[in-house]
Amino acid sequence: MSTTTDQASSKLQHIRLQDMPVEHLNPLIDRQFVAGERSMLARIILRKGSIVPQHSHDNEQITYVLDGALKFIIDGKELVVRSGEVLVIPSNLPHSAEALEDTVDLDIFCPPREDWIRGTDAYLRK
Amino acid sequence: MSTTTDQASSKLQHIRLQDMPVEHLNPLIDRQFVAGERSMLARIILRKGSIVPQHSHDNEQITYVLDGALKFIIDGKELVVRSGEVLVIPSNLPHSAEALEDTVDLDIFCPPREDWIRGTDAYLRK
Repeated sequence: MSTTTDQASSKLQHIRLQDMPVEHLNPLIDRQFVAGERSMLARIILRKGSIVPQHSHDNEQITYVLDGALKFIIDGKELVVRSGEVLVIPSNLPHSAEALEDTVDLDIFCPPREDWIRGTDAYLRK
Repeated sequence: MSTTTDQASSKLQHIRLQDMPVEHLNPLIDRQFVAGERSMLARIILRKGSIVPQHSHDNEQITYVLDGALKFIIDGKELVVRSGEVLVIPSNLPHSAEALEDTVDLDIFCPPREDWIRGTDAYLRK
């Protein structure tokens, strides 16, 4: 095996998403994630009524609602994303979200959210 | 709203993943995907016994098995990824996969798989 393959192999991760550390960001929002070098997959539990205040980031975001419903406000427009639906949020587009129901959502970021890894995501921890 | 926000807003996508075009790659594998500029989310149905031959790509891959089980061979080692489990496959690491059961899997790529978008992914279409 080449050195390049050895290096790549050392970065392989095999995990059970629900076994990753659970961050209780606030009483209504829990989060787990796994990060590669280029992208990140997060599983987020948002209880009904929870709110993610408006924010923006360079990272492209793909939100996939597995269960429940999230009401986003983007460009001053309401957009309800329901179970089975996907929202691709381009870089730097401000957005907020409210859980209309108890919701399980996957969030994908490219590149990974360094603020989440560092824990400097104060806007979520209120 | 600034021009930058206007440009970002035009790239916003809201879709239902199961309503995206279904590609029947071969009799045992169906695929749907949505691509942003930096990343891609695919939903792949692999029937029991289907095989993805060994291949590699620069794109980082995160595989999340929603249902079923995939047996990967990476570095000559077997790795079974079951429902709820995630595999982060670094850039350029050769891998193959076999569905041990009927499987629904999410694949995330960063950057998007240009060969999938162009339809030049012949290794999958056998």
